Amino acid sequence: MNQLVIDTTLERVRAALEAGKVEDALAVLANLHPADRAEAFSDLPRDDQEELLPRLDPEDAAELLEELEDEEAAEAAASLPTAALADVLDEMEPDAAADILGDLPPAQASAALAEMDAEQAEEVRPLLAHADDTAGGLMTPDFFALRRQMTVRQTIDFLRGQEVDHETPYYLYVVDRNDRLIGVVGLRDLIRAAPETLIETIMNREVRSVPVGADQEEVARLMKKYGWLAVPVVDADGKLVGVIRYDDIVHVLEEEATEDLYRLSNVSDGDLTPWSPVRVSVSRRLPWLYVNLVTAFLAAAVVSLFEATIAQVAILAVFQGIVAGQGGNAGTQTLAIMVRGIALGEIELGDAGPVIFKEVSIGLMHGVAVGLAVALGAWLWKGIPILGLIIGLSLVGNMVAAGLAGTLVPLTLKALKLDPALASAVLVTTVTDCVGFGLFLGLATYFLPYLTV
Amino acid sequence: MNQLVIDTTLERVRAALEAGKVEDALAVLANLHPADRAEAFSDLPRDDQEELLPRLDPEDAAELLEELEDEEAAEAAASLPTAALADVLDEMEPDAAADILGDLPPAQASAALAEMDAEQAEEVRPLLAHADDTAGGLMTPDFFALRRQMTVRQTIDFLRGQEVDHETPYYLYVVDRNDRLIGVVGLRDLIRAAPETLIETIMNREVRSVPVGADQEEVARLMKKYGWLAVPVVDADGKLVGVIRYDDIVHVLEEEATEDLYRLSNVSDGDLTPWSPVRVSVSRRLPWLYVNLVTAFLAAAVVSLFEATIAQVAILAVFQGIVAGQGGNAGTQTLAIMVRGIALGEIELGDAGPVIFKEVSIGLMHGVAVGLAVALGAWLWKGIPILGLIIGLSLVGNMVAAGLAGTLVPLTLKALKLDPALASAVLVTTVTDCVGFGLFLGLATYFLPYLTV
Repeated sequence: MNQLVIDTTLERVRAALEAGKVEDALAVLANLHPADRAEAFSDLPRDDQEELLPRLDPEDAAELLEELEDEEAAEAAASLPTAALADVLDEMEPDAAADILGDLPPAQASAALAEMDAEQAEEVRPLLAHADDTAGGLMTPDFFALRRQMTVRQTIDFLRGQEVDHETPYYLYVVDRNDRLIGVVGLRDLIRAAPETLIETIMNREVRSVPVGADQEEVARLMKKYGWLAVPVVDADGKLVGVIRYDDIVHVLEEEATEDLYRLSNVSDGDLTPWSPVRVSVSRRLPWLYVNLVTAFLAAAVVSLFEATIAQVAILAVFQGIVAGQGGNAGTQTLAIMVRGIALGEIELGDAGPVIFKEVSIGLMHGVAVGLAVALGAWLWKGIPILGLIIGLSLVGNMVAAGLAGTLVPLTLKALKLDPALASAVLVTTVTDCVGFGLFLGLATYFLPYLTV
Repeated sequence: MNQLVIDTTLERVRAALEAGKVEDALAVLANLHPADRAEAFSDLPRDDQEELLPRLDPEDAAELLEELEDEEAAEAAASLPTAALADVLDEMEPDAAADILGDLPPAQASAALAEMDAEQAEEVRPLLAHADDTAGGLMTPDFFALRRQMTVRQTIDFLRGQEVDHETPYYLYVVDRNDRLIGVVGLRDLIRAAPETLIETIMNREVRSVPVGADQEEVARLMKKYGWLAVPVVDADGKLVGVIRYDDIVHVLEEEATEDLYRLSNVSDGDLTPWSPVRVSVSRRLPWLYVNLVTAFLAAAVVSLFEATIAQVAILAVFQGIVAGQGGNAGTQTLAIMVRGIALGEIELGDAGPVIFKEVSIGLMHGVAVGLAVALGAWLWKGIPILGLIIGLSLVGNMVAAGLAGTLVPLTLKALKLDPALASAVLVTTVTDCVGFGLFLGLATYFLPYLTV
């Protein structure tokens, strides 16, 4: 659905609400695909949302919350009275219900859990123990487990008796008497096999699984690499405890990409959007500006060492920014390629040597190429050849520093098991600012007699 | 497979090759999962790759090329003699074969196409007409089309007769006598239906499709939003011409995320990796450093206007970088959020007004908060209260400029149907550099009598 249709739909919903016709508003929403309904709902003002949500029947509300972003879903859910909330959670996928419960205030979460259907609560409770960013936090405990002595006909009859909704994976897992995962059967294998075939003769015994504590990024990388539609999750005993579907990892991959891009741009919170409230935006962005400020004062202190030189040759203030800035740009290039390479698994710690060597070589070449251009430009513009030499030399040095910092910073963060994108932009530009100012103004001070002629 | 296993495998392959035992090297590779085989292969030096590839049988070579990244696959394929290349292309998925042919030198591509199996060549040829980044470039023309008068039993018998590999989608499409798409049936519906049921009674008539010329990013966004495993592609007459699978879009989403991150970091080529040759890296990165250089000279020219002021108060050179740099950091934050918001479809052109207003308000608050801190710092450090005032005022102004530029630049690029990430980092920092230097040094010149006391 394109934005125009969504806008028209929103107008109709809001007009109906303003006229006090809540039923009409609900009818408009009910006609939409769940994904569109969620998109329209999330564009409504908060008070309209809170008016509509309790009027939806629990199934529709559950579907709506499942489609919303985690944070938004939790906020909407929090506005419901406990009994209504429990009814909605009962209708949700257990993993989605657990996500919401995890984001609610603890008191409200346990009250809702207590009022939920016992069977659903039992499925949801163990999920609450897993961190959001692990396999356990991503998985759904809703899956079909087969036994190997079943026939294809029995399996198909079994499937016919189940409520098969769009969340059902296309793989069926086979477990032994202790619920340990021993094989997998695809729906396609099932369709193609004769009815009396035993599951154990068509199941694939080389089934790959991930441990319940595996990092979500690792799981996403595996699923992407091997093209799996779903992957089973096992506990320490090899017991099948859940399944992660491909659409869960699409979300993870996007989340990680957003986080990397944000962190390299001094935005530390991956959940910020253009629509985050001003208060939230400022509280998440300002701290990073302050962190940058500390390093900016560090760079200023380097310049301050050479105040006496600048007082004699004010033109240095014109060019100091070019040396520092070009080093910063080159360092940012290296950093982007390193961070993305680490995220996509193209680069490991063991690769440090050749990669550092390569980036330093590139820095040297960039330094010579950019240094010559700036030296020439400065000479033509200001007519002082020695100024060109100083700029050229300091640019070469700063570009090499950029290559070193741009590789060493993310690799060191990775070695410390931290996110390579975290704070690395600040660290790299601190290096290029300080080295750039220091080299340029230091060389200028050294050559001062020739500059003041 | 983790890096350690890959490293060990690589060592065994290379040891075998060095000992001249090509057969042993092939045997080691043959035992791996195709995705692992591709990973190991792509880590081998070029000459080892060229020794191994022609020795693989065409099916294995085809599988390998399908798993490699586009560029790498084309390079490896280009090293094969025409006849061998044609044999390998015959064994590939038509869309993958078309991707390789599109990346080969035209003469080699048409020679290979001429030697290919006639049937495969016929499937591949129309794909070559579609741009890589459109639905037509992503789709495979290999799909099962059903007719609505078929029964479930006939369909299952038909499927049993087909070679069903892992590329087969889990949806079966229904077409009319003119090959126009009229419905879709899931494998699950098929399993649950009675054998004599007609396809038309279980098919979903509200099948969504994308036009063959649709942008790949748009297709990826739709599939992600609605959780589709596959989407059918139709031509202008509504004729079903291909199918796009979910794993194709995972690749698209990653590609687009890499491109955005790179472009915001002054790297214009999304294909660069830490392993790109130095020559390629420099040729793709240096031009952007030169573009940045032009804008750096622009900012230097602004500083140059105030050389006389700096000559009198050298301390201004210490603080000018803080004003410009903090504006740049704030602008980069806004830009990152805008670019990602546009990429994820959270923001449209019609939203410009409120978003610009919001970012300018945030800029104002950031300006006051950072301005106060820097003013205080400068006063404490250098003991000149008026310097603090000048810094504070120019920071407020520059942060507002950052909010304006950070929103207007990507929105304008989007309105011009260009990539919002393209060149926007350069443009925004040019604005914050020039405004920062101009405001700060301009105010300093105005207040000069008070600074030189």
